[in-house]
Amino acid sequence: MQKVAILGIGQTTISEHWEQSLREIAGEAAFAALQDAGLEKVDALYVGNMLSPLINGQNQLGTFIADWIGLWHQEAVKVEAACGSGAAAFRSALMAVAAGEVESALVVGIEKMSDKTGHDITASLATAADADYEVEQGVSFVGLNALVMQRYMHEFGWKHADFAPFSINAHANAMFNPHARLHERITTERFEKSSMVATPINLLDASPIGDGAAAAVIVPASKVASLKNKPRLIVAASASSTDTIAVHSRKDPLFLRAAYTCAKRCYEMACVKPSNLDVFEVHDAFTIMAALSLEACGFAERGKGVQLGLDNEITPKGRIPICTRGGLKARGHPVGATGMYQIVEVAQQLRGECGETQVDGAKIGMAQNIGGSGATIITHILKVD
Amino acid sequence: MQKVAILGIGQTTISEHWEQSLREIAGEAAFAALQDAGLEKVDALYVGNMLSPLINGQNQLGTFIADWIGLWHQEAVKVEAACGSGAAAFRSALMAVAAGEVESALVVGIEKMSDKTGHDITASLATAADADYEVEQGVSFVGLNALVMQRYMHEFGWKHADFAPFSINAHANAMFNPHARLHERITTERFEKSSMVATPINLLDASPIGDGAAAAVIVPASKVASLKNKPRLIVAASASSTDTIAVHSRKDPLFLRAAYTCAKRCYEMACVKPSNLDVFEVHDAFTIMAALSLEACGFAERGKGVQLGLDNEITPKGRIPICTRGGLKARGHPVGATGMYQIVEVAQQLRGECGETQVDGAKIGMAQNIGGSGATIITHILKVD
Repeated sequence: MQKVAILGIGQTTISEHWEQSLREIAGEAAFAALQDAGLEKVDALYVGNMLSPLINGQNQLGTFIADWIGLWHQEAVKVEAACGSGAAAFRSALMAVAAGEVESALVVGIEKMSDKTGHDITASLATAADADYEVEQGVSFVGLNALVMQRYMHEFGWKHADFAPFSINAHANAMFNPHARLHERITTERFEKSSMVATPINLLDASPIGDGAAAAVIVPASKVASLKNKPRLIVAASASSTDTIAVHSRKDPLFLRAAYTCAKRCYEMACVKPSNLDVFEVHDAFTIMAALSLEACGFAERGKGVQLGLDNEITPKGRIPICTRGGLKARGHPVGATGMYQIVEVAQQLRGECGETQVDGAKIGMAQNIGGSGATIITHILKVD
Repeated sequence: MQKVAILGIGQTTISEHWEQSLREIAGEAAFAALQDAGLEKVDALYVGNMLSPLINGQNQLGTFIADWIGLWHQEAVKVEAACGSGAAAFRSALMAVAAGEVESALVVGIEKMSDKTGHDITASLATAADADYEVEQGVSFVGLNALVMQRYMHEFGWKHADFAPFSINAHANAMFNPHARLHERITTERFEKSSMVATPINLLDASPIGDGAAAAVIVPASKVASLKNKPRLIVAASASSTDTIAVHSRKDPLFLRAAYTCAKRCYEMACVKPSNLDVFEVHDAFTIMAALSLEACGFAERGKGVQLGLDNEITPKGRIPICTRGGLKARGHPVGATGMYQIVEVAQQLRGECGETQVDGAKIGMAQNIGGSGATIITHILKVD
């Protein structure tokens, strides 16, 4: 498998873009990435998206977006893995470039959620869970995560307030990310007093949805030997793994086994240990997911992920900086686009473009995207070559 | 890119499977393919599906089906390109095996359409067209194809009855395919008297939807050097291309440019000419699509595709046998599964398993899957190695 480099990145602000359609949002990120890469065309387009059939009445999103950005007569396809769709599309593009089938690929993660509201959104998001065994019983997606969080608190003895640092760190970092959905510092007190969504998950445990797109251009690393002003970023590792789709089918619902498997494979591929990572963009759809991800990826023992937050180890100056651009919690979670935001943000860290939340001397970063409640995990390690 | 072989194939009967759920249908084809391949496990699962979010309330279909067939902790993902989803998933699997990232892959095309009926299905299928520019104007998917067929008849002077051979050949061949949805011979007279759907497309121009799944197992060709009883089938070429998603955006709506591009690339990759192909599984969602595909792929001049049917050249004994197992018209069109049925059927021909509709000495076959009205084309050439 030949080495692949990230040549360009682009993203839109995450918000409720009432004035823009799905194709316009996707186009904005796509053109930004192409411009950053200094390319006008690429051989293929891979689109990560979860909800366009349900929310925008549109399928065949690969061709749909290729058409909009003028990329006719090339390959285009959509890849879907629920909220893991963005990274799944990136991985598909990686395979095609690595196989030598395409010389350059554009990956776009896109979600335009404000075309529907309220119950329609809750029902659409529930399609990430098992329709027959979970949703049929009336459980929503946040409800499933609430059950997991409740169990975690019971099992390991944490209080709800102990999860506050995840949310506080994410919000603090998002203050310096112009593309973030929320720009609002929060405190432990406010975290605790926030409205309940599904016990014990309250509004500040949960990430906000939104409209947004993020994109990257990848090429064989051999084609970018001599970049002048930017470090050469390569994809040092990529892995994808699954668990049961229904949470109740797992022997241990508090262990993200697929995340563990992916991280292990990625560490081997990239020849690194967890302690070598300078930044880790986790999939903090809910605070509990940040804790479980840190544990599964080797940064804390089982049941101790929460301690990393309490010890200030997850901030940009800490031992393992997470959510450095705001994470899902404050940058926002346009579901099928999120995995590409994570890739773009790790790239920004490695390029030293993160200003106030820049991790000093960042050379290696990991992005971990989750579909469903830990059901599909796609992990990538990027590094400065 | 390393050479890839097809090690096993499987399929379910296409019907209205009221008694089976989506996962059960997919599982049946998956297990059949694994058994045919003599494998219990594979490294990765690629699922082609178009409508599960809309019809079955289920996203994340890769992991969903991996879970059902016991393929935990491996890679799984869904690929979508409207009615081209099946072949798009096959191509994704091919890239991963060719890149050396996975050693064996299972591809499943699945659609379970009978969970909804009537208008819901028409609206769901319309998501393959452009939501803003076509569907918003009230045009259905069959309506779009009817406009194309009308124009073709006007432009090249054909009568409706001239399209009858496409339908007659498909129905005749399906008589000998136990997995086909329809087992019913038709005549030109019946073709002409069939109920109108959208002028000039009548019921016998149009393919029936249905529930079904088809699957294949692929591995590096180097791993299957010494098969005993079966010929070694390799994927000699693969290509994917797009056109504008809205039909009205094309300079020439009667030319399937993406099909032309794919066929050209495939002929080059496989070092063959159209006349070398022993069998061609076309995407005859409507009779007009069969005619346009034959023209775009070099079997007839522009406007002359219909003549091939009238000259009896498309039957199993003809110059270019198409729809040898019934095609979309009579085998049936479970939309996201269709591309995998085509791959399976070409493989059956090359293995000499087609009985009454076996093409004598078939060694090279092409499968061409279409998403939308010619918007996404994915073409594969298989051959006996």
